[in-house]
Amino acid sequence: MEKDSDKLVDTNSKMEEQTNQQERDPESDSLRQPLLKRNKTLSSSPLALVGTKVSCDESLDYEINENDLFKHDWRTRSQAQMLQYVFVKWLLAFLVGLLTGLITTVINLSIENVAGYKLLAVVNYIERKRYMMGFFFMTAVNFVLTLVATLLCVFFAPTAAGPGIPEIKAYLNGVDTPNMYGATVMFVKIIGSIGAVSAGLDLGKEGPLVHIGACIASLLGQGGPDNYRIRWRWIRYFNNDRDRRDIITCGASSGVCAAFRAPVGGVLFALEEVATWWRSALLWRTFFSTAVVVVVLRAFMEYCKSGECGLFGEGGLIMFDVSGVSVKYHVLDLIPVTIIGIIGGVLGSLYNYLLHKVLRLYNRINEKGKLAKIVLTLTVSLFTSACLYGLPFLASCTPCNPSAADSECPTTGRMGNFKKFNCPKGHYNDLATLLLTSSDDVVRNIFSTNTPGEYSVFSLLIFFALYCILGLFTFGIAVPSGLFLPIILIGSAYGRLLGMTMGPYTTIDQGLFAVLGAASLMAGSMRMTVSLCVIFLELTNNLLLLPITMLVLLISKTVGDCFNPSIYEIILDLKGLPFLEGRPEPWMRNITVGELADIKPSLVTLCGIEKVGHIVDVLRNTTHNAFAVVDNTLVPTVGQVSEVHGLVLRTHLVLVLKKKWFLKERRRAEEWEVREKFTWVDLAERWGTIEEVAVTKEEMEMYVDLHPLTNTTPYTVVETLSVAKALVQFRQVELRHMLVLPKCHGPSVPPVVGILTRQDLRAHNILSAFPHLEKSYASQKGC
Amino acid sequence: MEKDSDKLVDTNSKMEEQTNQQERDPESDSLRQPLLKRNKTLSSSPLALVGTKVSCDESLDYEINENDLFKHDWRTRSQAQMLQYVFVKWLLAFLVGLLTGLITTVINLSIENVAGYKLLAVVNYIERKRYMMGFFFMTAVNFVLTLVATLLCVFFAPTAAGPGIPEIKAYLNGVDTPNMYGATVMFVKIIGSIGAVSAGLDLGKEGPLVHIGACIASLLGQGGPDNYRIRWRWIRYFNNDRDRRDIITCGASSGVCAAFRAPVGGVLFALEEVATWWRSALLWRTFFSTAVVVVVLRAFMEYCKSGECGLFGEGGLIMFDVSGVSVKYHVLDLIPVTIIGIIGGVLGSLYNYLLHKVLRLYNRINEKGKLAKIVLTLTVSLFTSACLYGLPFLASCTPCNPSAADSECPTTGRMGNFKKFNCPKGHYNDLATLLLTSSDDVVRNIFSTNTPGEYSVFSLLIFFALYCILGLFTFGIAVPSGLFLPIILIGSAYGRLLGMTMGPYTTIDQGLFAVLGAASLMAGSMRMTVSLCVIFLELTNNLLLLPITMLVLLISKTVGDCFNPSIYEIILDLKGLPFLEGRPEPWMRNITVGELADIKPSLVTLCGIEKVGHIVDVLRNTTHNAFAVVDNTLVPTVGQVSEVHGLVLRTHLVLVLKKKWFLKERRRAEEWEVREKFTWVDLAERWGTIEEVAVTKEEMEMYVDLHPLTNTTPYTVVETLSVAKALVQFRQVELRHMLVLPKCHGPSVPPVVGILTRQDLRAHNILSAFPHLEKSYASQKGC
Repeated sequence: MEKDSDKLVDTNSKMEEQTNQQERDPESDSLRQPLLKRNKTLSSSPLALVGTKVSCDESLDYEINENDLFKHDWRTRSQAQMLQYVFVKWLLAFLVGLLTGLITTVINLSIENVAGYKLLAVVNYIERKRYMMGFFFMTAVNFVLTLVATLLCVFFAPTAAGPGIPEIKAYLNGVDTPNMYGATVMFVKIIGSIGAVSAGLDLGKEGPLVHIGACIASLLGQGGPDNYRIRWRWIRYFNNDRDRRDIITCGASSGVCAAFRAPVGGVLFALEEVATWWRSALLWRTFFSTAVVVVVLRAFMEYCKSGECGLFGEGGLIMFDVSGVSVKYHVLDLIPVTIIGIIGGVLGSLYNYLLHKVLRLYNRINEKGKLAKIVLTLTVSLFTSACLYGLPFLASCTPCNPSAADSECPTTGRMGNFKKFNCPKGHYNDLATLLLTSSDDVVRNIFSTNTPGEYSVFSLLIFFALYCILGLFTFGIAVPSGLFLPIILIGSAYGRLLGMTMGPYTTIDQGLFAVLGAASLMAGSMRMTVSLCVIFLELTNNLLLLPITMLVLLISKTVGDCFNPSIYEIILDLKGLPFLEGRPEPWMRNITVGELADIKPSLVTLCGIEKVGHIVDVLRNTTHNAFAVVDNTLVPTVGQVSEVHGLVLRTHLVLVLKKKWFLKERRRAEEWEVREKFTWVDLAERWGTIEEVAVTKEEMEMYVDLHPLTNTTPYTVVETLSVAKALVQFRQVELRHMLVLPKCHGPSVPPVVGILTRQDLRAHNILSAFPHLEKSYASQKGC
Repeated sequence: MEKDSDKLVDTNSKMEEQTNQQERDPESDSLRQPLLKRNKTLSSSPLALVGTKVSCDESLDYEINENDLFKHDWRTRSQAQMLQYVFVKWLLAFLVGLLTGLITTVINLSIENVAGYKLLAVVNYIERKRYMMGFFFMTAVNFVLTLVATLLCVFFAPTAAGPGIPEIKAYLNGVDTPNMYGATVMFVKIIGSIGAVSAGLDLGKEGPLVHIGACIASLLGQGGPDNYRIRWRWIRYFNNDRDRRDIITCGASSGVCAAFRAPVGGVLFALEEVATWWRSALLWRTFFSTAVVVVVLRAFMEYCKSGECGLFGEGGLIMFDVSGVSVKYHVLDLIPVTIIGIIGGVLGSLYNYLLHKVLRLYNRINEKGKLAKIVLTLTVSLFTSACLYGLPFLASCTPCNPSAADSECPTTGRMGNFKKFNCPKGHYNDLATLLLTSSDDVVRNIFSTNTPGEYSVFSLLIFFALYCILGLFTFGIAVPSGLFLPIILIGSAYGRLLGMTMGPYTTIDQGLFAVLGAASLMAGSMRMTVSLCVIFLELTNNLLLLPITMLVLLISKTVGDCFNPSIYEIILDLKGLPFLEGRPEPWMRNITVGELADIKPSLVTLCGIEKVGHIVDVLRNTTHNAFAVVDNTLVPTVGQVSEVHGLVLRTHLVLVLKKKWFLKERRRAEEWEVREKFTWVDLAERWGTIEEVAVTKEEMEMYVDLHPLTNTTPYTVVETLSVAKALVQFRQVELRHMLVLPKCHGPSVPPVVGILTRQDLRAHNILSAFPHLEKSYASQKGC
């Protein structure tokens, strides 16, 4: 029985933790110390991030709990119920797609209209030369919008801040963040996202959409919000962690698909970046969900073309279409492509590094309370408004290309590539084109092809610098925020700049340079390859660009990987989520699971038929979430034989105590006795804590038959197995608890050596208990 | 110790096998028989397919063999060697891409030129009205080309026949087909593929290209052909099954990429259809390989545009570009899309069913000897030639559209969409357009957009019927053949027919109908979704088609799955390859691994320090490929304690006997003694059979210390684990042998219960030993 160290403790900083560690353990730097070090626990040192309350994470039970009740339920499922299950599974995938599509449409419509009318009003003021009035109007509107978003976030759903993708990634890895997929979070995320994006903040709706997709999926899968759940027989089969994981994967893919209108990219994003386990069957269901999303989106776009959606209406299924330009490139063009890739990798890892610093700073500010969070958010909003409005005045007016049609340049309306702003007739302000538009339009403008002279170097430099600053300081504030858009903006700026520099030597269009720049920074920061490639393909609809996009992505990712991990991994680490990597560290071959089990608090096992008093004792005095059940029998001629019956979960013990299923004498319970009291559905619920249980003194002396509730088929390892191999098994067969068995068989050998959990197998935790491991490896590496 | 039933026995048909089964076991239909049935072995009942000699398959060792030698080698690897390893890994991925690209270019050039000049000559004869002469010429050329291909296949490399994709799929699942990835096979496949495709046979070069990619990868990974291997220190780290698997995955993706010029599609195909295990790191490396392929292909196309490549020269990176047509569709268009999907599913499964029958028939013919194979192949060639040449005479001449430019219609050259054939000036023969062109051009012609009246219903019906027949009867002949092209041809024919029928009610172009038809039949037969979708996207370059393509694929796959498994699964089954599915059957929860281990021949274990005589005995009298090593110690106060030391492979025992590493007395060997004799590289080789070993009588009395050669960390399961869970573990952690441990601990309990292999966990084998399992499940399902 083990410490399932799912409780994460907030400490101020990792530095402090490490100092303590060393104080407690003065010999840690000695290389010759024995491998066995008792009385040390393996635990993580998390840091809570901005606006999220990661305090008590529970691991998820992906392993099938094959106890008697499950087996009975399994045997009695009729064919009709099987069909029902399959039907509901697909129905849920359909509904996830449908609802994600609808909500995305609502969000898009709202943002386009709110931001659109705001910008139209600003343009009106400028037209009439009332510059100060325009500034106050814009700042005030942005301020109010941000205020709404942040108030909702801070007071109703702190977990709705940020993108939500790291938490989903952790969930699919087996770590549950509490209050992450509720109805409140979803609504706050929707409203907050509309507010924050309309307010012109440098953040995207892409990350939040992925989170919204996951929320929809989770709510559908459990039959509604926590307090008003539908408990139909039809969806009761989905009340387990395995099926919920599958449907949340569908939701996340649908979200990405809705964000970029990229159905294949959505599936691949979920596969490459978010999901830990993957099956072919799931690939197919996810694909179905995204197909539904894209059909819904397309239907609404058709509808909006008739002009019934206010300012929303233009644009087809492809967000940033650059298919109009013919792509011709030769061997020499590999040089700028390589340069973009390298810059993307360097800038991407630099961005990750700086963002990490900023997030830790913000973390300290946010710890000061709710008011601090709100003030910080509003400060960023004010700064953003001032820059967006003020900077275009620095740019000089450019005369329009006389060959262009009158309607094209300059534009005063919301859409259009050449904004008039403060310029005279026949001139446009290139910086206003980039700053005073809604976020999607900015990307469209900077990706615009066949417009080589549109932007001056000066304007692009200002744009680049501004968004570097905003991109770093906006992400951590207490509103729903996505990372995709800020990175695309920074990347496209330097891409286009490089394109202008390279202009005389290359035939590649400047718009394509901007696309490649955006792709390179994404790869340099997020470190994805195939899914990014498909997303960019679906965003830009230019298949001929594919080979060079692939090269850029590969180079950027390689360069970025030399410096630091991906941005999502950094955030996961900052949030202290015990994410389990699939790839074991090399030094993990030098340590066995037996050694890990040895340093944990001594093992507590339960008997197959156990006294109530002992169970209560054990539950009160340990924090373990599972206990090994061992039967000891005295076989007459042979001697004492002990048998590992399996693993029983804490929550099921609490359930037994709550339902008071006690036996008067020490005997096995009959099958009907169990089934009368419990159903398989009961076992899938979480049953609170031991503190809620009241047991009388007489009851304490009674017995419980644990056999029917025990998972009789837990996965096991022998103590001589190396941690590297154990980690592979733990992750591949999706465990929560791993039983360690002894290598020896004979009299007086205990039948179980220990139980390992996710925390025990994390590299960081093992290293803090066995610091010489890494050193020995490092010294090897050096030789 | 277990029967590692890797030996596959050819029996005539599964029917017979099953009858025998029932005769041997008269109680098999009784539901109440005991679960335990001793003295039955679990084995498969394979059927060898056309041209392949699947007789002795070896399982692959994907598990890391952590014995003393490996650990020593691991510890002493310096950082430079680590970097070397990573560098070589990426270099190999690059070379795989480069060579695949080059060889594909050679194949493409050859086919286009050979087939092109042949067709030009035929057209010349027809122009001069010398119809019989044209017929004889074409038939003779096709005959000779087919003869070359089949002679090579039959005499030099029987495994080069067929597509090779099922064998690669099996390899990546852990089953090695002998003589599959050699240099001879690769050359036969290249030449044979050129011959067969140029001969106008109804088969594609896509499947063979995948196999060629895998061959290149395998040859590079092992440093050259079997007899002339480079044994550089640099590539010695790649001499293991794990790294070879990774590189073969790269090869297969590169092959798909080269076949369709679809880099992302190639990666996804390998992921969805071919590979069993997948890691994010591999995704990235595969992506790199395909990027290299596409760059190479593109470079050669640029070069060929200058006209230096003979008849090859037209066409860009996109094979069947339909981006010219604007896609507009409305809700009502969902009806034809659904119809195409359903037809695709039904026809696809019907195709699978019929092809299965034909392949079994061909199997019987091919068993008659090499001559029979050759005659069969040539008969198909003659029939094909006759049909391709003769049928166009049935079609009437159609007048050209007067608005078209003169140069467009009719065409007499090799390219072009309107063939003149036997028609007068200003007219074209639509059936000749479809039949008398090279295979890629046929697809291009039938996909041609904005040509609604080009083909008559009559011609399309003939085309459809002809290719249905050819598609069924061509695949199994003894030449390299791919399945993609035949299926695309059949599918596009009925798609276009449906488009013509639907013409008045829809706005979708007929060419797009043909594309959708092809996609639907592919999904109906091969049952892929995401990868097919991306491949079609990259083939046709029409992103707006994506939503309806997705729907068609989903419907077809769903409908097809109702009837039978995918075509690759059918071929795998026909070839008797012990492919391990990832998804356990529901009835596998009702049986434990202990029961499986019980019915196998009794277990033989070896002692840690074993007599040579006993080892020789065991190796001669069993066919097992691994043996459990158990140490028994008498601990004074406690009694007999036995410890499972690990698993030793047969090949390592043979190695010990061959190198005569014997000890005079029963003692543990010193570390230097082992290292003096063996290196880690030795252990990675396969060391022949026990029959090649000669041991003298004195040596028989000596001892061997098995400890240093034993894998001390085999994965284990407890006997109470259900087969369903064991199967998941077996497949997920990539095992060859799975040790079964007892559930009880105590005196006189044996330390190992059995060893399970791939064959023991296959559903079919378990069911033939425990036939009531399925019945009990079936009866449950019925209630």
